[in-house]
Amino acid sequence: MKNELVKRKELAFQLYELLDTESLCGRDRFVEHNRETFDAVMDIANKIATEKFATHNAKGDAYEPTFDGKKVHMIPEVKEAFDAYVESGLIAGRFDFDEGGMQLPETIMTACAGYFMAANPSSTGYPFLTIAAANVIRNFASPQLKNAFMPKMLTGEFTGTMGLTEPHAGSSLADIHTSAIKHEDGNYRIKGNKIFISAGDHELSDNIVHLVLAKIQGAPAGVKGISLFVVPKFRLDEAGNPAERNDVALAGLIHKMGYRGTTSTALSFGENQDCHGYLIGEEHQGLRYMFLMMNEARLGVGFGAAMVGYSGYQYSLEYAKERTQGRVAPNNKPTDKPATIIQHGDVKRMLLAQKSYVEGAMALCFYAARLVDDSHTLTTDDEKRQAFELLDLLTPIVKAWPSEYGPKANDLAIQVLGGAGYTREYPVEQCWRDNRLNPIHEGTNGIQALDLLTRKLWQADGAGLKLLQQRMEADFAKVTGKQSQQLIANLLPYIQQMQSLLPMLGQHLKSEKLPTLLANATCFMNIFGQVVMSWMWIRQANVAENALKNTALTDEDKAFYLGKVQTAKYFVRWELPAVQRDIALLNDMDDSCSEMQAEWF
Amino acid sequence: MKNELVKRKELAFQLYELLDTESLCGRDRFVEHNRETFDAVMDIANKIATEKFATHNAKGDAYEPTFDGKKVHMIPEVKEAFDAYVESGLIAGRFDFDEGGMQLPETIMTACAGYFMAANPSSTGYPFLTIAAANVIRNFASPQLKNAFMPKMLTGEFTGTMGLTEPHAGSSLADIHTSAIKHEDGNYRIKGNKIFISAGDHELSDNIVHLVLAKIQGAPAGVKGISLFVVPKFRLDEAGNPAERNDVALAGLIHKMGYRGTTSTALSFGENQDCHGYLIGEEHQGLRYMFLMMNEARLGVGFGAAMVGYSGYQYSLEYAKERTQGRVAPNNKPTDKPATIIQHGDVKRMLLAQKSYVEGAMALCFYAARLVDDSHTLTTDDEKRQAFELLDLLTPIVKAWPSEYGPKANDLAIQVLGGAGYTREYPVEQCWRDNRLNPIHEGTNGIQALDLLTRKLWQADGAGLKLLQQRMEADFAKVTGKQSQQLIANLLPYIQQMQSLLPMLGQHLKSEKLPTLLANATCFMNIFGQVVMSWMWIRQANVAENALKNTALTDEDKAFYLGKVQTAKYFVRWELPAVQRDIALLNDMDDSCSEMQAEWF
Repeated sequence: MKNELVKRKELAFQLYELLDTESLCGRDRFVEHNRETFDAVMDIANKIATEKFATHNAKGDAYEPTFDGKKVHMIPEVKEAFDAYVESGLIAGRFDFDEGGMQLPETIMTACAGYFMAANPSSTGYPFLTIAAANVIRNFASPQLKNAFMPKMLTGEFTGTMGLTEPHAGSSLADIHTSAIKHEDGNYRIKGNKIFISAGDHELSDNIVHLVLAKIQGAPAGVKGISLFVVPKFRLDEAGNPAERNDVALAGLIHKMGYRGTTSTALSFGENQDCHGYLIGEEHQGLRYMFLMMNEARLGVGFGAAMVGYSGYQYSLEYAKERTQGRVAPNNKPTDKPATIIQHGDVKRMLLAQKSYVEGAMALCFYAARLVDDSHTLTTDDEKRQAFELLDLLTPIVKAWPSEYGPKANDLAIQVLGGAGYTREYPVEQCWRDNRLNPIHEGTNGIQALDLLTRKLWQADGAGLKLLQQRMEADFAKVTGKQSQQLIANLLPYIQQMQSLLPMLGQHLKSEKLPTLLANATCFMNIFGQVVMSWMWIRQANVAENALKNTALTDEDKAFYLGKVQTAKYFVRWELPAVQRDIALLNDMDDSCSEMQAEWF
Repeated sequence: MKNELVKRKELAFQLYELLDTESLCGRDRFVEHNRETFDAVMDIANKIATEKFATHNAKGDAYEPTFDGKKVHMIPEVKEAFDAYVESGLIAGRFDFDEGGMQLPETIMTACAGYFMAANPSSTGYPFLTIAAANVIRNFASPQLKNAFMPKMLTGEFTGTMGLTEPHAGSSLADIHTSAIKHEDGNYRIKGNKIFISAGDHELSDNIVHLVLAKIQGAPAGVKGISLFVVPKFRLDEAGNPAERNDVALAGLIHKMGYRGTTSTALSFGENQDCHGYLIGEEHQGLRYMFLMMNEARLGVGFGAAMVGYSGYQYSLEYAKERTQGRVAPNNKPTDKPATIIQHGDVKRMLLAQKSYVEGAMALCFYAARLVDDSHTLTTDDEKRQAFELLDLLTPIVKAWPSEYGPKANDLAIQVLGGAGYTREYPVEQCWRDNRLNPIHEGTNGIQALDLLTRKLWQADGAGLKLLQQRMEADFAKVTGKQSQQLIANLLPYIQQMQSLLPMLGQHLKSEKLPTLLANATCFMNIFGQVVMSWMWIRQANVAENALKNTALTDEDKAFYLGKVQTAKYFVRWELPAVQRDIALLNDMDDSCSEMQAEWF
C-alpha cells in the first residue's frame, strides 16, 4: 500500500467534523487532553501499525501458529509487534492516570484501534483481548485480585483471554458444563473444556489470564448459575510473579480460514484436578459482568469489520486507479488507449458501494464510541443513563451491520481486482477471509437480530428508541444542504413504516405467532440497520455540504466533500430501498420460514 | 458426508419430472438411449465422484500443486481420479458414437458433471477443460488437425486448456499481444504470455493441448484480428505421438484462494522463437469460434457454482439436523433438553434461502442444458434456432445467477455452522473459497450484465425475449395448483414492470445517458434474474403440487414435494421483491454511480 493505512482526512472528518470530539476535553476526565494530544496518540498508533503490524499481515496468514505438543510457535514478527504496542502504552490508553493509563476517550482509542485493525487484525488480537480482559477485572474483581493481575496486563507482561464457549454448547451459555468447586484455600478448582478461545495460548507474555465462565456446584440451572473466574496459566508466587503452572492445558489449535495469526484454541481446565480459579465479584453474577462489557466488545467487533472492509476498499481503489482495461466512450475505438478501470460504470458502482459500507460503518462505530464516552463522562446521571440506553439499543447493529457489510465490501474489492483479486498474490482475499469471522463471534448476527427485536427495542419502556428518534429529528432539523434535505425526504417514509410496525411486533412477541416473528427477526434488523445507516450518511452529507460553502477549499478537500455527498446519495437511493421487502414481510407476518419443516428440506 | 453427493431424488425430479428428459430418446441422436442408460451413466458418475474425487477434495486444497522449476507436483490422488474418469469414457460422453463417444444429451452430461462439481471442483477441472478444448477442435479445426489431437484428448492421453487471458489485458481480449507469424512450414510461430490458464501445466497426461488466442501479423486491430491456434506442449512425431518439446514454458503457478487443486498458470509462448502453433479454422475468426462455444462454457461455470453451493447446503443441513443448541418454545426451560438447531427459525431461514438458491440454480442450468440439446437435435432448423436464441438470451444469467447465489448459499452454510463453519476442520469454508472464483471467470458477472443489457436483449429483434415470454405464459397457463397460481399472481407485476422498462432502456442505449445505463446494468440483470428464477420455482412448485395429489406417496416423497412448494413460496415472497429497488433505479435512470468521479473516492 502506498497510501496511509487509514486516511487521516477521513479520521479527522469523522472525529472532529461529524462528532466534535474536541468537546470531550471540556469534561473532567479528559481535561488534560486536547486535539494535539489526541492527534499525537493517533500518530503513534499509525506509526506502530504501519511499521510493525501491516508488515507481517500476509506472512502471519501464510505461516499460522503451530503447536508441537508443548509450545505454540509463531513468526517472530508477532512478538515484535506486540512489544511495540506494549511499549507505546496504548494497552492502558483507556485506563486512569493513576492506573498508569492515559485516560483517553473511547472515541480516540477506537480511532487508534482502526489503524491496527486495518493493518493486521490477527496480531492485533493479542493486545486487544488483553485490554478487554483487564477491563473486566478492573470493573468487577476485588481490589486484591485486581492488584494481582491488572497492572501486569496493562504493561503487557500478562495477556488476557475470554473463555466463554464450550464445544457442546456454542452460543448457548446457559448450557456450559465447566464447574467450579470451592476449595478450603478459599478459591475454586475449575474443571471443563472451552473452545474457540482466541489467544488462548502463545509465548508472547509471561502469563495468560483466562477469564472463565463456570458453574459453581449447586448453582441454579441456566444463565442464572454462571460465575466468572480468573484462571491464570501460571499461578502467582507471593511476590506476584508467575510461578507454578496452573492446570490449564492447550488441547489443540483450531485451524481457521482467516484471522489465522490469532491462535484459536481448545483449552482443558483441571484435567489433573488442580486448576485454580479466582472468583470475580459475586457468585452467579458472571454473565451479568460479561454483559456489562458486551456493548464495548461488540463495538470492537463491528469496528474491526469496518476497518478490514476499509482496508480492502482502499486497496481496490488504488488498483482501479492504476489498472487499465477496456475502453470508455467516446474513446472506445480499438486504436484508442485502454482506460483505467475506475472509469467503467460498473467499477464505480462497486467502489461506491464499498465506500458507502465502510465509511458508513465507521461513522456508526464512532457514534457508538462517543456514546460509551458519554455514558461514562456526561455530567448528570440522567445524561449518562440516556447515552447508555441509546448505545444499548444500537449495539446489535453496531456489531451486525459492519460485520455484514464489511465482508460485502471485501467481496466487491475482490471483484474489482478480478482474477488478481482471487489470488493470494494480492491482499484483498485475505481481508475477505479475515472478515468472515465477524458475523459469527461475539454473538452471531442472527442472535443480534433476536436481541434487537425481542429485548433492546422494548427496554426501559422503549427509551432507547425514543432517544434515537429525538436524535434523528434534531439532526434533520439542523440540515441546511439541499441534497441532504432531499435525502431526508427519501428516508422519512421508511422511518414512518418502521415505527408503524412496532405495535404489531410488540403484540406478536406475546402471541402464538412468536415463532414467525423470531424467524423473521433479521427483517427487522435490516430495516433498523438501513434507517440508522441512512441517518449516518445524511449526517455526513450535511457536514460536507456545509464545508463545500467554503470557497477557499483545496481541490483535494472539495473532492473529498463531493464524494461524501455522492456516497450519501448512493446509500439512500441504492441501499436503503432494499428494506421495502422486509417491511412487507413483517407487515404480512410472512410464515415462509417458520412453517418450513425439518423433514421438508 | 453420510448422504449422497447429490440426492438422486432431486436429480430425478429435475430431469424427469420438470424436464421430461426421457422424451429426448425419441430424437435420432439419442435413439439408442433410454432412462435406464441415462441412470446407468449417472450411477457411474456418482460412483467415481464419490470414490475417487470427493475423497481428496480437502487434501487437494491443503496440499496445492507446486512447481520445482521443472515439473509440477501434485498429490497422487488427482491422477488416480483423472484416470478413473478417463476409464469411464465420460470424457467422450457428448461425442458421437463414431468418435468413440456415447452420444449422450447435454442434459444428462450436466447431471453427471454435477456429481463431480459437488465432489471436487478442482480435480474436475482437468477432464472438463479437456472436454471443452476437444469440443472446439471438433467443431472448427481441419480434419487433419482434428484427427491429430481430438482422439487422444477423448482418451485422456492428451489434456486441454483455453489460453485467452493476458496479464495486461484481462477481460479485454481486443488488446491481446500474443502474436502468430506464418512460417514456411505452413504453420505459425507463437509468441506471447498468457495468465490464469487453468490446468496449464501438470503431469497427468502425455501432452497438453493449449488453445491459444493470438494475432497474426498484419491482422486488423481489436477483436476482429484474433485467431485461434492449437499449441501443444509436445509436438507430435509422424506417428502422432508426443515427441519434441514445443516452446511453451511454465512461467509460474498462481496461488489462488480456492480452487487450489487446479493449477492456474502463467505461460510463456515462444521465448526461444520456436513455439509451433496450428491455426484452427480461418484467420481472424478465433474469437467467433470461442464465442460459439461460450454458452456451453458459461453453463458449465453456472452449474459448477450451483453444485458447490449445493454441496455446502447439504452439509449445513446435515449439521443443523444433528447439532443441538439452545431451546425452542414451548420446551425452553433451562432444564429442558437443547433443541436441534434446525428448529430455530433463523436457521430455517438460512437453510431455506440456500435451498432456494441451489435447487433454483440447478433448475435453471438443466433448463439451459436442455436448450443446448434442443438447439442441436430438434427437428426443424426453425426449432433449433429458437432454442439457440432463448439459450443465448438466458446465458448471462445462467452464468451469473448461480455464481452470485451459489457463494451466497456457501456463506449461509458457514453461518449455520457458526464457529465450526469458520474452521478448516469442516468443509463449508472450502466450498465458499472455491465458489468465489465463479463470479470472476468466463466473463465477470459485471460483463454478463452488460452483455444482457446491451446485446442479448435486442438480438434478432428481441426474438429471445419473445420466446421467453411465450414459454413463461405457456407454463403459467398449465398451472393448476392453488399455491403455484398464487405465486404467479405475485410474479406478474414484476414481469410487467420489467417489460415496461424495455423501450426506455433501448432508447437510452443510443442516448447521451448511455454511461448511466451501463453503470446500472446489474440492476437490469437483477430484475431479469429474479423473474426467471421465480418462473423456475413456480415450475417446480406446480409439478410438486400435482405430485401431492397422489394419495399413495411415501412420507419421504410427500415431504420432498411439500419442501418444493414451500421453497417456491419463500423465493417468490422473500427473494423476488428485492428487485423493486432495481426497477425504481432504472425507471429513474439514477445517476448516483455514473456521476461519481474518480477523484471523489
